[in-house]
This record gives sequence, C-alpha cells and structure tokens, in this order.
Amino acid sequence: MRIIRSIRGLQTWRRKQNSQNVKIGFVPTMGALHEGHLSLIRQARKHCHNVVVSIFVNPLQFGPAEDLSRYPRTVKSDQALCRKAGVDLLFWPSNAVFYPKDFQTSVTVNQLSQRWEGEARPTHFEGVATVVTKLLCLIRPNQAYFGQKDYQQLLVVKQLVQDLNIDTRIVCCPTIRESDGLALSSRNQYLSESQRTQASGLSAALRQGVQAINQGATNVRAIQNSMQKMLQEISGVKIEYLAVCDAETLEPLTSVKGRVVLLGAIQIGAIRLIDNLLVKRSL
Amino acid sequence: MRIIRSIRGLQTWRRKQNSQNVKIGFVPTMGALHEGHLSLIRQARKHCHNVVVSIFVNPLQFGPAEDLSRYPRTVKSDQALCRKAGVDLLFWPSNAVFYPKDFQTSVTVNQLSQRWEGEARPTHFEGVATVVTKLLCLIRPNQAYFGQKDYQQLLVVKQLVQDLNIDTRIVCCPTIRESDGLALSSRNQYLSESQRTQASGLSAALRQGVQAINQGATNVRAIQNSMQKMLQEISGVKIEYLAVCDAETLEPLTSVKGRVVLLGAIQIGAIRLIDNLLVKRSL
Repeated sequence: MRIIRSIRGLQTWRRKQNSQNVKIGFVPTMGALHEGHLSLIRQARKHCHNVVVSIFVNPLQFGPAEDLSRYPRTVKSDQALCRKAGVDLLFWPSNAVFYPKDFQTSVTVNQLSQRWEGEARPTHFEGVATVVTKLLCLIRPNQAYFGQKDYQQLLVVKQLVQDLNIDTRIVCCPTIRESDGLALSSRNQYLSESQRTQASGLSAALRQGVQAINQGATNVRAIQNSMQKMLQEISGVKIEYLAVCDAETLEPLTSVKGRVVLLGAIQIGAIRLIDNLLVKRSL
Repeated sequence: MRIIRSIRGLQTWRRKQNSQNVKIGFVPTMGALHEGHLSLIRQARKHCHNVVVSIFVNPLQFGPAEDLSRYPRTVKSDQALCRKAGVDLLFWPSNAVFYPKDFQTSVTVNQLSQRWEGEARPTHFEGVATVVTKLLCLIRPNQAYFGQKDYQQLLVVKQLVQDLNIDTRIVCCPTIRESDGLALSSRNQYLSESQRTQASGLSAALRQGVQAINQGATNVRAIQNSMQKMLQEISGVKIEYLAVCDAETLEPLTSVKGRVVLLGAIQIGAIRLIDNLLVKRSL
C-alpha cells in the first residue's frame, strides 16, 4: 500500500493512471476506521482496479463548539486496517497541505443543506461539500463510496457531483450495525456502557416507524409520536429531531408517499448521534 | 469541428480522450467572439492536440439589473470563427442543460471576490466561479486560457483551481486592443461612435499611470489623482474606480511595490467597461 501526503504527489500518481485506463474506487474517511468503513472499502475492492482511501479529519465540517480536537485519531491502526483490506493508495494529508494559508474557496449545496443536520450544524455541509469536491477533483475516481448512515451527507454529495459535472458515480452502501441495531460510528467510542445501551434506542425507534409504515400507517404525525414516545421512555436521551421525509428532497411529509426516509438525531450527554432508515410505501 | 450540446455527450467524449493521452486546451467564452477570444484559441491551438471552446452566456454571473437579455448572441458567426480557427470541439449547452431545475450548488472564492468588480457586481464572481468549476470538471483540460482583460476574474479562477485541486493550468493571455488602446470586449458593440471615442480614455489613463510608475512615481494617491484628472476631462465618462493594487491579492496599495496592477472601471451611459495594466516596479 502506497501512502501519499502531498497534493502534488497525488496529482502525479493520478496522471499516470490515465494511460492505464484503470477503474479507480475511492473511500473518503476521517479515520477511526470501523466495520462500516471496511464495508465501503470491500465494495470498492470488489468493483475497481485501484482502491484509494483518504484519511483526513476535515476541520471545515466541525462547528466551533464541536468535537474536532477530541475526534478519535488512530492513524497507525487505520493504516494496518487499510493494508489488510487491500487498499492500494492511502491519501493522508495534513491540514496545512490540504488547506494552505491562502485557501479561500467554498462549495455550498443550497437547498439540501438547509434542514436537519444543516440546522443543527450550520457550517457542516459547506465543510463537507468543500472537502468532497476537493477530494473528487484530486482523485477523480470512477466510483466513490459513502455510507447510508450519513444520509443527508450522501444526498448533498450526490447533488454536488451532479451540479458540478464531476464524472464520478456515488455508491451508497448500507449502514453497518451492532447486534442491537446501533449504527456504527466513530463517535460511539465516546459512549459509556450505560449510554451505549441508551443509544440503541434510536435505531429501535426508527425500526418501529418503518414497521408501522409497512403495516399501512400513512399519518406522519402519528408515526412520529409513537417513535418519540418510545425514545422519551429512555432516560438520558434528548431528541433533536425525528422526521419522516421525502427520500430525495428531505422535505418533511405529512402523509407517507413513495420512497421515504426516517431521520433521527439524539443527544446523550454531550454526544450527538444520528441514524436513518429508508422505506418504500408499497401502494 | 464537432458540436456537443449535452453534458452526457461531453462526458462520453471526455472519457475517450483519456486512453489517447492527448493534451486538451480549453477556451471558455460567452460567445460574441472577437479578436481577443481568437487570440486565446490560437494559443490553445499552438500548445494542445485538442482545442475545446465553450459558448455559454452564464446567467449566474449577471446581476438582476444587468445586460443578460441584451448581451450579444451571435452563435452562427461564432461557429464559423471557431471552425476557421481550427477548434476541435464546440460545447454549446442551453441554460436548461447547464442548470437543470434542481441545480443548487455554488462555488465562492471568498477574499478575491470582495473588492472592485465584486463590490460593483455582488453576485458576479460566485456566478463565474460556479460556471468555471463546472466547465473544468466536465472538460478536464490540461490548460485553460483566460484573457488578462478580466484580471480579477483571472485571479478568482486561478485561486479556485488551486483550492479545489483541479489539475488544469490556467494560462493568462494578453489583452487585445484597438489601435487607440481600447480593450476589446463584446460589450463594445453597445457603444455609439462618440461613446467609442470616450471609452478609449480608460486605457489612456491606465497607460499614463504605468508611465508615471516607470518614471519612478511611487505615491499611489498622486498616481490615482493624475489618472482621475485625465478621465474627468472626458465628458460622458463616469469613473467607478481607478486603483493601484497588489497584483496577487488585489489589495489597494499606498505606495508602489513589486508587481502591481492598475485597475479601472468606468460607465459611459448605461455601459460598464473595465480594463487593467500590469507593471513591475523595478527597484
């Protein structure tokens, strides 16, 4: 596995791939790799000749009061995991390389960034859109792999790729979960044992919502109320939002129609966790 | 010369170039081609195997009170000029193709877009940065050619290419002028004969500023005053700004140092004209 830390080095590597007509798969990460990331890498490994992983804790997507400084950094073990998973190239830039002093460009996906995570974290998606645009322009992968876990991020990325005419296919991979349903996240490391148990309530509530829809429920208010009730019974959990939305636009629905996403965000102590489930209302 | 009008068509064309390892030169235009554009195309023709020209009057870079609707559109003669100049591919999308209904992404180059044209036209450079990012992601040229005439635009484009890690070299080509010094511009068509004569005062004033610097003047206030005085003597000309700036940052100087750009913008009737000259203070 090759490790490149500079923009110039990566550009030189990328130009060489052109003449070889290889298919490049890309998995962007912030490190602290877990089974969720590894499932993305395995997908890329299956479909592409060249698998590129980036590890970069992107400061632009953290708000001033967020967990940038304590976000888990485990580069040594991440490298070992990448090597074992058959990654060809690890791109691991420093902040100074990725955002030099005179850096001043930002990318915004306007509508899709407004609600939900965008409301809770006002500068988050601008940071995401900017870092992903930079990475895609640099690596120019044929396919890039994102987890469904960060569903709104996935839509923001798909939109910017379409809007900026970036010739990369965005592949959505299923959320990987613990046996009790908790979605894997690098932030799960922050949870104490009792918080860990509380946290699984989020996926349980979302599953209950999906079940209700599958059983024919269409009234969003009622579905939301029942999910909310379930979560409110767990002490220590603060609900940020629980929403039933159009799966393409993320606009909230009043009545379940077509492809729907159930989005949830909770706080447990100082820790924010998000999760989502997709469901198609069969007519 | 091939003409492509769709994003998909262009992406297909672009993928085919990869395997052939050819050098692609790109000249983005809003049509109404004149000798300035043709000089860019000739440069591209000289250096590259494949020359791509785009014609697209980008609505995003016009303000609500500006001349979008009456901007000259001369596509038939533009096509003939491109063919004659040896252009290989003309990309000529419609608004609906380039900005489909759900389009919602924008690119901003923050500091460099603030002053001068950015102040006079608050949404202009966001429109420029967005269209140029789209075109560069789509065409992925090795080199793209821009005129020095729109100097601030040139810096905005260079910055976004660097910041977003777009692997294209931005080539600056000299401003082409009429025999009396007037910089060529598609907007010169709007000028009456008497306005045409008044308009040449802008380049004359800038030349006078350069001459003063070459003769040893360093006091920016004095240089600006003398340029201003010269332009004020021409009836019908309203000065918007006349500035002596750092050629990299566009920050105004008080004393001439290093590489300097003299920027000017005037209004003649409803017509805005800009021009600039570069000068290096020899120590």
